[in-house]
Amino acid sequence: MVGSALRPKPNVSTLYSRGVTSNLHARLRVTRRRSLELAQSLTAEDMVVQPSDDASPTKWHLAHVSWFFETFVLKVHLPGYEIFDDRFAYCFNSYYVGAGDRQPRSQRGLLTRPTLDEVLAYRRHVDNKLDELFAQPECLSRDVQSLIETGINHEQQHQELLLTDILWLFAESPLAPAYREDAPGLNTMPSQDAPPINWIDVGGGIFQIGHDGNGFAWDNESPSHNVLLQPFRIADRLVTNGEWLQFIEDGGYQNPLLWLSDGWTRASQEHWQAPLRWHRRDDDGWQQMTLYGLQPLNPAAPVTHISYFEADAYARWARCRLPTEFEWETAVRRAVDPDACSAASETLVPQPLDGDSECALQQAFGHVWQWTASAYLPYPGYRVPEGTIGEYNGKFMVSQHVLRGSSCVTPAGHSRVTYRNFFYLHQRWQFTGMRLASEVAP
Amino acid sequence: MVGSALRPKPNVSTLYSRGVTSNLHARLRVTRRRSLELAQSLTAEDMVVQPSDDASPTKWHLAHVSWFFETFVLKVHLPGYEIFDDRFAYCFNSYYVGAGDRQPRSQRGLLTRPTLDEVLAYRRHVDNKLDELFAQPECLSRDVQSLIETGINHEQQHQELLLTDILWLFAESPLAPAYREDAPGLNTMPSQDAPPINWIDVGGGIFQIGHDGNGFAWDNESPSHNVLLQPFRIADRLVTNGEWLQFIEDGGYQNPLLWLSDGWTRASQEHWQAPLRWHRRDDDGWQQMTLYGLQPLNPAAPVTHISYFEADAYARWARCRLPTEFEWETAVRRAVDPDACSAASETLVPQPLDGDSECALQQAFGHVWQWTASAYLPYPGYRVPEGTIGEYNGKFMVSQHVLRGSSCVTPAGHSRVTYRNFFYLHQRWQFTGMRLASEVAP
Amino acid sequence: MVGSALRPKPNVSTLYSRGVTSNLHARLRVTRRRSLELAQSLTAEDMVVQPSDDASPTKWHLAHVSWFFETFVLKVHLPGYEIFDDRFAYCFNSYYVGAGDRQPRSQRGLLTRPTLDEVLAYRRHVDNKLDELFAQPECLSRDVQSLIETGINHEQQHQELLLTDILWLFAESPLAPAYREDAPGLNTMPSQDAPPINWIDVGGGIFQIGHDGNGFAWDNESPSHNVLLQPFRIADRLVTNGEWLQFIEDGGYQNPLLWLSDGWTRASQEHWQAPLRWHRRDDDGWQQMTLYGLQPLNPAAPVTHISYFEADAYARWARCRLPTEFEWETAVRRAVDPDACSAASETLVPQPLDGDSECALQQAFGHVWQWTASAYLPYPGYRVPEGTIGEYNGKFMVSQHVLRGSSCVTPAGHSRVTYRNFFYLHQRWQFTGMRLASEVAP
Amino acid sequence: MVGSALRPKPNVSTLYSRGVTSNLHARLRVTRRRSLELAQSLTAEDMVVQPSDDASPTKWHLAHVSWFFETFVLKVHLPGYEIFDDRFAYCFNSYYVGAGDRQPRSQRGLLTRPTLDEVLAYRRHVDNKLDELFAQPECLSRDVQSLIETGINHEQQHQELLLTDILWLFAESPLAPAYREDAPGLNTMPSQDAPPINWIDVGGGIFQIGHDGNGFAWDNESPSHNVLLQPFRIADRLVTNGEWLQFIEDGGYQNPLLWLSDGWTRASQEHWQAPLRWHRRDDDGWQQMTLYGLQPLNPAAPVTHISYFEADAYARWARCRLPTEFEWETAVRRAVDPDACSAASETLVPQPLDGDSECALQQAFGHVWQWTASAYLPYPGYRVPEGTIGEYNGKFMVSQHVLRGSSCVTPAGHSRVTYRNFFYLHQRWQFTGMRLASEVAP
Repeated sequence: MVGSALRPKPNVSTLYSRGVTSNLHARLRVTRRRSLELAQSLTAEDMVVQPSDDASPTKWHLAHVSWFFETFVLKVHLPGYEIFDDRFAYCFNSYYVGAGDRQPRSQRGLLTRPTLDEVLAYRRHVDNKLDELFAQPECLSRDVQSLIETGINHEQQHQELLLTDILWLFAESPLAPAYREDAPGLNTMPSQDAPPINWIDVGGGIFQIGHDGNGFAWDNESPSHNVLLQPFRIADRLVTNGEWLQFIEDGGYQNPLLWLSDGWTRASQEHWQAPLRWHRRDDDGWQQMTLYGLQPLNPAAPVTHISYFEADAYARWARCRLPTEFEWETAVRRAVDPDACSAASETLVPQPLDGDSECALQQAFGHVWQWTASAYLPYPGYRVPEGTIGEYNGKFMVSQHVLRGSSCVTPAGHSRVTYRNFFYLHQRWQFTGMRLASEVAP
Repeated sequence: MVGSALRPKPNVSTLYSRGVTSNLHARLRVTRRRSLELAQSLTAEDMVVQPSDDASPTKWHLAHVSWFFETFVLKVHLPGYEIFDDRFAYCFNSYYVGAGDRQPRSQRGLLTRPTLDEVLAYRRHVDNKLDELFAQPECLSRDVQSLIETGINHEQQHQELLLTDILWLFAESPLAPAYREDAPGLNTMPSQDAPPINWIDVGGGIFQIGHDGNGFAWDNESPSHNVLLQPFRIADRLVTNGEWLQFIEDGGYQNPLLWLSDGWTRASQEHWQAPLRWHRRDDDGWQQMTLYGLQPLNPAAPVTHISYFEADAYARWARCRLPTEFEWETAVRRAVDPDACSAASETLVPQPLDGDSECALQQAFGHVWQWTASAYLPYPGYRVPEGTIGEYNGKFMVSQHVLRGSSCVTPAGHSRVTYRNFFYLHQRWQFTGMRLASEVAP
Repeated sequence: MVGSALRPKPNVSTLYSRGVTSNLHARLRVTRRRSLELAQSLTAEDMVVQPSDDASPTKWHLAHVSWFFETFVLKVHLPGYEIFDDRFAYCFNSYYVGAGDRQPRSQRGLLTRPTLDEVLAYRRHVDNKLDELFAQPECLSRDVQSLIETGINHEQQHQELLLTDILWLFAESPLAPAYREDAPGLNTMPSQDAPPINWIDVGGGIFQIGHDGNGFAWDNESPSHNVLLQPFRIADRLVTNGEWLQFIEDGGYQNPLLWLSDGWTRASQEHWQAPLRWHRRDDDGWQQMTLYGLQPLNPAAPVTHISYFEADAYARWARCRLPTEFEWETAVRRAVDPDACSAASETLVPQPLDGDSECALQQAFGHVWQWTASAYLPYPGYRVPEGTIGEYNGKFMVSQHVLRGSSCVTPAGHSRVTYRNFFYLHQRWQFTGMRLASEVAP
Repeated sequence: MVGSALRPKPNVSTLYSRGVTSNLHARLRVTRRRSLELAQSLTAEDMVVQPSDDASPTKWHLAHVSWFFETFVLKVHLPGYEIFDDRFAYCFNSYYVGAGDRQPRSQRGLLTRPTLDEVLAYRRHVDNKLDELFAQPECLSRDVQSLIETGINHEQQHQELLLTDILWLFAESPLAPAYREDAPGLNTMPSQDAPPINWIDVGGGIFQIGHDGNGFAWDNESPSHNVLLQPFRIADRLVTNGEWLQFIEDGGYQNPLLWLSDGWTRASQEHWQAPLRWHRRDDDGWQQMTLYGLQPLNPAAPVTHISYFEADAYARWARCRLPTEFEWETAVRRAVDPDACSAASETLVPQPLDGDSECALQQAFGHVWQWTASAYLPYPGYRVPEGTIGEYNGKFMVSQHVLRGSSCVTPAGHSRVTYRNFFYLHQRWQFTGMRLASEVAP
C-alpha cells in the first residue's frame, strides 16, 4: 500500500439515496475516528519519528489523509471552503505532482512542525467541514460521494500503514516497546504446529478476474476480464512459523540453489537468516517483535514479515510454487463463503488456524497478505482515470509483485477477493506471508 | 542475454542420424570460428578491459564459452579428457554454483592473466578435442548432441554480448573508436523519416504460445501453452529515431506524468535526456555512437539503446502501450513469413524500413530487441531441467521484462518467434527498441 | 565539540575549600538548569528528531549529560547509589567502549522511548542525588570535584551542540521555524559593512602555548610547551558576510584554482554556492537561517557556517592564509584583555563589530569559532589520562583541524585562550568562521 | 606520490655549465629508458588495466610522463615543436586544470586506445625531440634545465607508482602472477627475527628543517626553517613483520582502545585483520603477495603495506608513538652518513637488517616509507610557484600525513633526507611502514 496510487472507480455504484448518503457519512465518521484511536497509545514523540524511507510517521499519516479530503473534496466541492493552512500542502502531499511540490518522502520525519496539536486541529477542521458538506445535499453529487468513498478507503489503507510503520519504529528501539499492552492469549496459545495442509484442486478453464462494479474497488482491480488457467492445486492454509523453522534448520538461508539470483544477492547483502522481526535468544529460543512487544514465536501461527524472495525460496524448498494472483482469486472465489470466512482478525498478530472454519480454503483474509507469482501489471484494457485524483494511476505498475488477501491489521470492511496489494520483492515490514500452490500431479 | 541462464531443452529433437551429426559439427565449427572473427579488429588491450559491471571483456567471453564446452561436454563425455588449466574454471565460470567458486562478475576486467595468447591456445585445445569427440560416434549420444547444440547457442548469445560490450567500451573512450571501419551507405542513407505506421488488427481468442519442440529452443520458451487474448492492434514497424526526436522536443524527458514512478526516479538520477549513445553536437545536430564510430543520427532508422522505462513513457506519450509478449508472438506468427522476413541485418546498426517487405508486420527480427509489457516469469508448468547445466534455470525469472525479436547483432540463425530475451528495466546497452500496440478502438 | 573527547585535567587546581565546593555546587546547579531552559521553547517532537548523523536530538543531549554524571560521579562516588534505569546506559552512552554497548550514533533519533517525561525525571533524579553528594563533604575529594567540574564543562559543550543541532533541524523544516522569537535589533541593524581590517604584527620568537594548570581545561590543551614562530600578521577582526559576498560574486565557488583538491571535490559533490544556511530569494536578496528564523543577511556580521575548505579558499582568494593555532593563541594572549574582550554574545547570532572595543584584536570570543591552519594533533608529551573517563582521550586527534575562540552559542564562562575545538574539514553546521593572517611583508 | 603535485624549485642550483648539461641529458636518458625497462616483463593487457581508482595503468604512466615533457618543455621551449597527437592531452593530463580537460582519474583504465604501440611511438617522439633540444644549447636556459630536472624527478615518482600499481593489479588476480621471476634468496632468508631495537636519544633544541637549495628538491621541502623540538628517542630500525605478528596475536586488530576513532571505523568497514597483501594459508602459515608473487612472510623484514591508522595503533600497543617528520629529519641528519647508508635496495621487497651498517640509525632509505605523526601541511612561508607547472602547488596539503625516507621501489638517486611523501591515512598499497619513537624517559 505504500506506493499504492489512489484509484477511484469512475462509477462507484449508485450511492445517492438518502440512506446511502447517511451510511456514507456514518462510515466516514467511523473511519476518521478510528485513525485517532489507533494513535491513542502513542506519545507525540512516537508520532513524529520516521524509522525508514519506506515508512512514514503517524503524525504524517494523520495529516496526509486529512489533506486528501481537503484537496480532492472540500476545496473543490464545498462552497466557500478556505484552506486551513497554505503550508500544509507542501508538508502532507505524498506524490501528486499535479498537487504541487512536496516534502521529500525520506524527510517526512523532519516535520516536527506543524506540531501534533496543530495536526489534530487540522483534522477537527476537516471533520467539521465534511459534516457541513453532508448538511448540503445539493453538494453531494454521485461524483462527490465517490470521492468521499475513495477518501475513506484511502484513510483505511493508511491505518494499516500506520500500524506497520509504528511496529518498525518500535522494533528499532532498544526498549522494544509494545504498541498495545493487552495480548490476551498470546502467550498461552497452544504451541503445537498447524494441521497438515489439505490441497484444494481447481480444474483448468476460463475464469473471470477482477471487480464487477458492485461496491467500491480501486481501479487496479478493473477491468473485469477472463483468463485461461491450467489445472492447479492450492494449500488450504498459510505456511506457518513452525514450517519456516524447518526451512531455516534445513539451511534454507544458506543454499543459493533455492533462491532467485536477485534474492540471493539481497539476502547476502542484508544477512537474512530468518524473517524480519525474528530474534533468537540463547535461553529463550525464537522470539518475534510484534505490536504487543517481543513475544515467543508461535509455531502454529502464519509466518509473516517475509519478502517475495524468501517466499519464493521457501516454495522451491517445499517443491511447490506460489500461486498466481489469478489462481488465488479463482480458488478463493470458489472455496470461500465470504460471510463465514472473511472476518478480520481481532488481534494485531496473525492467528493460528482455529479449526472451526466452514471454508475449505482458510485464512484467505485477516491474517497476512499472501505473495503471488504475479508481477503487478495493469489488467488488459486498464485505463487511467481522468482528473487530478487519478493523475498517477498505474505509475506503480512495474517491478513489484501482487499480494492477495488481507492482514491482521487491515481495517474491517477493507478486504475483498479482487483486492490487489503490491510491494517490492525485498520488502518485509508489512504483514506479508504465503500460501503454497503447485501443478496438479498427473 | 546477460543474465540469461542456459537452458537446454530436455529433449532436443532427434539429431542422431549421421547427416545431422555432421551438420552439427559444421555449425559448431562455424560458430567457434565466428567468435574469433568478431575479435579480429580488436587489440589485446581492447579485449581485456571491462567497461562496466554489466559488460564483460572480449577475452572473457572467448574463454568462458570454451570453458562451457570443456566443463559440460568434454570433461564428462570425452574419454580421457584432461583439463587444460585447473585455474581457468575459477576465472571463466560465470555463475554456476555447482561448478565451483568463480571470479566476481565485477572483476572480470582484472584478468590480465591468463593472457590473450593463453586464451587463444585454450580455444584451439577445446576445438581440437571437440573434433576428437566428433570422430568417436559412440560418444555422440543424443544427450551429448543436445549439449553441443546448447553450447553453440550459448556461444551465439555471447557473440551478441561481445559486440554490445565492445560498443560500451568504445563509447566510453574519449577517442570514440570504430569497431568496424566500413560503413557502406551509413552516411548516405536517405534521412527522410519512415512511412506512417500501419496498424495490424488481431482478433481476440485462445492462442498457442511457446516452443513446440521442433529444433533447438531455450527452456524458458516451454512449455507450449494456450493463452487467452483480447483483441488488439500492433504497429507494422518499429518506432524510429525521428519519432523519438519528437518525443524529446515535446518535453518527454521532462514530464513526470508520462513516466512510471521508478522510471522517473532512475531518469532523474542518471540525467537521461535521450537514448543511450546519443550525443548532441552544437554544429552537427544529433549523433549516435555506433560500432562504426560516431555517426549522424538517421531519423528513419529504428530507435535503439532505450530502457523499458523510456519505451513505456514513449508509448504513453503516443497514447498507446507496449504489446505483451503474447500479443507480439501471436501477431508475428500470423503476419510474418519467416522465409521472407527473418533475414538478419547485414550491418551492425538497425536499418530503416526498406519498403520492399512482403510481410505485413515488418522489422520483427534483425533490427532491435523489442520491449514488451510482460514481466519475465516462467510459463505455466515450467520445470527446471535436471543436472548441472540446468542447475540455475529460472533463477533470473523475476524483476526483468521480456524482449522479443532479435537485433542487428544477433547471429544468423539465432532468431526465433518464441525467443524470450530479458533485461532489467533500466538497462540500455543492448540494441533495445520498441513497437507500439493498443486496444482495438471500439 | 561533536566528537570531542572528555578530557579531565588530572590535577584540576585546588578546589577543596568549603567556599570552592559551594561555588562548584552553585555552578553545577546553574549549568544543569540552563540545559532545561534551552529546551523550554521546544516541543517534545522537536526534541526527539535527529536531523543528521552528525547532530543529536535535544532529548538525547539532556539524557546523555545526566548519564555522564550518573556513570562517572554518582555510581562510583555516592554510597548506595542505584542506577535510575538499567537500560539508559545503552541509550545514552555516546562512545565510551569501557561503559558498554550503545545505541548507534546515527540512530539516536529512533529513541522515542524513553519519553521526554522519563528523561526529565531522570534529570531530576540525578540532580537530587548530586545534591545529596554535596551534602556529604567526605565524598567530595579533590578527584570527585574534578569529575564534577568535568561534568559541568561537558554539559556546557552539549549546550552548544543542542543549539546548533536544533538549528539544523529547523533549517531542514519547510516551515523554517524560529527557535527564539525575540530578535531585538536583528532587522534594524545598520547594514553597512565592517570597517577595514587592521593588521596586527607579531614578531617571531619562542612562545608558550597551552594551559598552565590554573582552572579547568581539557587535556588536549596540555602540556603547556614552547613553540618557535616566525613573524606574522593577523587581522584584528573576523571576515564578514559582506566580504564573503564579494568572494561569491568574484566566482570563488566556481574557480578550482582557489581550492584544495579535496575541498573542490566536496564542494562539487554537494553543490556549495554559499555558506550553509544562506538562501537567495529573488526579491529579497540573501537571507540566512538563524535561531531567530530566516533573517536578511547582515553584511557587517561575521560570516559563519563555513567549512575549512571554504575558509582556506577564501584566504587564498584574499591573498592571505589562515593563522596557525599557535599564532592565534599568541596574538590573542598579547592583544586581548580578557576582562574587556571576552564577554560572550548576548544574542544567538554572531554580531557585527561594535567599534567600542578596547582590544586591538577583536571578536576573539563569543562570535564564531575560527578555523586555523593547524591539524588537530596532540601537543608534545601529551599523555592519555588514566581511568574510565579518559579511556578514549586522543582518539579523535587526526583528520580534523583546530578551531580557536568561541561562538555566539558557547555558554558563558566556557571560553578560554587555550581552548582547542576541532571539526572535520567539510563540516559546516557549527558557528564556524574565520580570521585572516599572513606573513609579514618584507 | 599519487596526488603529489609537481613542484619545481624556482631556483634549481646552477646547472648551466656544459658538463652539467650533458650530465642532465645522460640522466634524462637513463630515466626515460628505465621506465621502459620496468614495463618489459608486462603484456599489453597488464599495462592497460586499472585495478583501482587510486592506481593507474602502466600505459597511462608511460604516456603521462611523456605528456609532461611535451607540455611543459617541448611545446614551450623547442622552436617549431608540433604536438604529437592533439587528443593525448585529454587522455594523459593528470590533474592540471590549466592544461585543459582530462580523462577522469577513475576511468584511466578505459583507455584501450591509444594503443600501447601508439604510446611507445609517442615516447620515442618525445625522446627524439628532447635530444633535439639538447642539441640546441641556446634553448637550454637555466629555467629549461630546471624544468627537465623536474620532469626527471616526476618520471621517477611515476616509476615507483608503476610498480606499486602493478603489484595491486597482480594482487587482485586469482593467478597471483609474479612481476619478476628471479627472487634470489627470498625463500632462503634466515627467518629469525630482527635484533632488539636500539634507541637513539636526541636532545631538544632548535633544528633546521627542509631543503637548503643545493640540488633538486620539490617545493614542499621549502622554505628551510627552524623548529623547536623537545628531547625524544627514536628506534634505530623499522618495525618488523615478526613484531607485527605479535600485535596480531595480541588482538591488536580487535581492540578498539588501541585505535583512533576514524581508524577503528575504517578497519571495521574493511575487515582489516593484517597488513594489506598478507594471506594466511592453513598449511603454509602467513604469506605475502610481493612483486615476486606469493612468498612466505619473512619475520625479520620490515612490515609494509600498513595504513597510518595501523601504524598509530601499533605504536600505542607498543607504548610508543610515531616520530614527527621534524624528529625524523633531525635524527636522520645526525645519525646517518648518506654515503654509507642511503643505498637503495637492490630487490623489490624491503630487506631485513643486514647487521653490517655503519650508521646508528638504520633503514632510513630504500626499504619502506615511514609514517610520521605530522599532518601534511605547508612549511611556514611556503609560496606557490608561479606558472603553469606550479599551478596547483599545495592543493594536496591537507587531510594526509607525511611519510619520510624512501622504499625498496624508489628509484636510485630519488631519496633525500628532506623528502616529504604523503598519503591518506587509510591508504596501504604503497610500500609504507613505520619506525617507533617516544619521549625521553625522565
